[in-house]
Amino acid sequence: MARNEPQFDLSTHRIEALGDGVFAIAMTLLILEIKVPVLHGEAVASELPGAVLALWPKFLCYFISFVTLGVYWVAHHLHFYTIKRADRMLLWINVFFLMAIGLVPFSTAFIGEYVNQQLPVVIYGANMIIISLVLQLHWWYATHNHRLVEPDISPELVKSVTHVILIGPVIYLIAIGLSYVSTKLSIIIYLLVNLIYILPGSVHLHLKRETK
Amino acid sequence: MARNEPQFDLSTHRIEALGDGVFAIAMTLLILEIKVPVLHGEAVASELPGAVLALWPKFLCYFISFVTLGVYWVAHHLHFYTIKRADRMLLWINVFFLMAIGLVPFSTAFIGEYVNQQLPVVIYGANMIIISLVLQLHWWYATHNHRLVEPDISPELVKSVTHVILIGPVIYLIAIGLSYVSTKLSIIIYLLVNLIYILPGSVHLHLKRETK
Amino acid sequence: MARNEPQFDLSTHRIEALGDGVFAIAMTLLILEIKVPVLHGEAVASELPGAVLALWPKFLCYFISFVTLGVYWVAHHLHFYTIKRADRMLLWINVFFLMAIGLVPFSTAFIGEYVNQQLPVVIYGANMIIISLVLQLHWWYATHNHRLVEPDISPELVKSVTHVILIGPVIYLIAIGLSYVSTKLSIIIYLLVNLIYILPGSVHLHLKRETK
Amino acid sequence: MARNEPQFDLSTHRIEALGDGVFAIAMTLLILEIKVPVLHGEAVASELPGAVLALWPKFLCYFISFVTLGVYWVAHHLHFYTIKRADRMLLWINVFFLMAIGLVPFSTAFIGEYVNQQLPVVIYGANMIIISLVLQLHWWYATHNHRLVEPDISPELVKSVTHVILIGPVIYLIAIGLSYVSTKLSIIIYLLVNLIYILPGSVHLHLKRETK
Repeated sequence: MARNEPQFDLSTHRIEALGDGVFAIAMTLLILEIKVPVLHGEAVASELPGAVLALWPKFLCYFISFVTLGVYWVAHHLHFYTIKRADRMLLWINVFFLMAIGLVPFSTAFIGEYVNQQLPVVIYGANMIIISLVLQLHWWYATHNHRLVEPDISPELVKSVTHVILIGPVIYLIAIGLSYVSTKLSIIIYLLVNLIYILPGSVHLHLKRETK
Repeated sequence: MARNEPQFDLSTHRIEALGDGVFAIAMTLLILEIKVPVLHGEAVASELPGAVLALWPKFLCYFISFVTLGVYWVAHHLHFYTIKRADRMLLWINVFFLMAIGLVPFSTAFIGEYVNQQLPVVIYGANMIIISLVLQLHWWYATHNHRLVEPDISPELVKSVTHVILIGPVIYLIAIGLSYVSTKLSIIIYLLVNLIYILPGSVHLHLKRETK
Repeated sequence: MARNEPQFDLSTHRIEALGDGVFAIAMTLLILEIKVPVLHGEAVASELPGAVLALWPKFLCYFISFVTLGVYWVAHHLHFYTIKRADRMLLWINVFFLMAIGLVPFSTAFIGEYVNQQLPVVIYGANMIIISLVLQLHWWYATHNHRLVEPDISPELVKSVTHVILIGPVIYLIAIGLSYVSTKLSIIIYLLVNLIYILPGSVHLHLKRETK
Repeated sequence: MARNEPQFDLSTHRIEALGDGVFAIAMTLLILEIKVPVLHGEAVASELPGAVLALWPKFLCYFISFVTLGVYWVAHHLHFYTIKRADRMLLWINVFFLMAIGLVPFSTAFIGEYVNQQLPVVIYGANMIIISLVLQLHWWYATHNHRLVEPDISPELVKSVTHVILIGPVIYLIAIGLSYVSTKLSIIIYLLVNLIYILPGSVHLHLKRETK
């Protein structure tokens, strides 16, 4: 029994290493979707400023997605402060989590290309909801009956983290609903939702303190 | 003799680190093959849903390849639970393994582009068979005469892992054969074959228990 | 209190791992912006040398950006010789730092495409200034009131590193100003500014010695 | 004095980590240069086999470059079996080494696109010569006067590794010369040169044994 634990530790370490890799790559690939404007002829100097300014929705979406990926990266690591062991199911929940993370460069490029269209805004929100739900499953699976966590983890902590993760999909759902009114409104919410997880004094910080 | 062992440990560690990198990148590059649809004019809003729906074969192939890469990543790490040392040959078997893994974004893009054509379906299956055979070689080379594993590894374990790895190429070969009847059938098998390695109670899990 | 420290150590380790990933990817993606020239017909052999030579501004910018990213990578790691703990704010300063690093492949492709235009030269310089300022914030936040560093770090060290980081944006600002005279002059400065941080005997080396 | 060593160890560890990242990415990016053939109309099924077969030079170059990058990756790590400390100069030699590695996806795409043209063949060989020379510099700088290696490293080892690294550029130079006769001949040499470093009983293995 005791011999298993180093192996399990290796597993969580390996899962985190693959996760770090996928997050770093997904973040850095975001910029590949912003193409340098191609202009020719003598009017280049006069047309270039306009062509660059026209890229602003793409840079805004780059910014939003980079921060959002940062939020999920932090959340993923915070989970592993509490999760001490890995089993086959947890491993595969992680692969599905990373698969949803891997979609972000696409949905970012899509919303950045068609910032006034409703469909890309809905797909972007749906992508984030899927990520959040897999993260929720990750937490539920690991903590249910103290499956992969220390026996002394309090039910209050488990419940409070569950609530924190649920805030995301609820707000993304509201943002999707508001896209029927204005896609710009939805995008502003996609930007602001991250503040809940970034600002000091937020619920996640609370989690970190409790799990120490 | 004792001084060698930390070096050899470093070697397996290094091989695993390069492997984690190549797997993380190959997984994340898959999405680059799905391009955002380019539409212009006033009909964008009405044409966009159709253009996105037309991408479904590519997303299906993204899903299949991501899961399949996950399966091989797990298998690769499970090997290193048993393999305790590395030599030059093992190193190069690993480079060839990663080379075959690096082909997956191409064969995924190819099958996703031509989902009704037989050739891409055959090439995709062939890619997976090559990966499996190199993995087989990896296991055979390391365990033959207990070359790079502990002396107390049982012949039953070696044999059972050999059989597990062989299931893959056999099923991929059947899927390639069925592509003469229907390419959709082959793709369904490419999807379902992963269940053998993912589902709890599967043979790989068995391996993991024995190697503890 | 003592139990917290390994967790904080884990945090700085994780931040450095994500940073290594983003730097390695941003550096390696630079080459993707240099496309192989596409030529057809019988004149390929005679036209190819000219087409390759025409790529020289892109290779020059590849060279400059790779070295510059190297400078920031070294600076980032040198910070973590001194910074011993991480908190939520430091984590997010790092995410914003990596976001600015992630922009470098774009601004490099832009300046490489329009080497005679002023706008890309200004944007490139602005990108570097943003990186430097976030790095400055990183250092200020960690060292202010010895927040995340050892209590015995001398005020002289803190001040000297602050000055070293400030040299960069000042020179980039001068280079941006000189772009009104000649964009080539600015690009030469973008190249040479790195010598301050590379050459032995430079101020950064001084920092490294003091922090030992 | 003793306090410095863990720091220096960290440095070599960090350099190796960045190196692993750049190598893994450069290897995996190679496949991005092979585009899926784009065909339309009813003749797709009949034209696809020809279009795939026409990609063979690109796959051959993928294979050659992947193996060659594997050779340099192994060589880079073997150096760090002997190099125990890092200083600023070694760090920058490594950045320049990785910069030359980062060029490989370009020179591979170039030679794969124009397999019958001499210029890409020369550029590919030149890229490899640059990599080898920086590697030579890396070894010379670290071992000269036992600067960054153990004092008991024998002069014979230093000399033998120097010779091993020199074999590469000499053969690449011959291959470049032979490109005036036939580019295919050069490409065959680019493939076969790797056997010197891969085959068991090779000189590098010898190095590994001595450094234990």
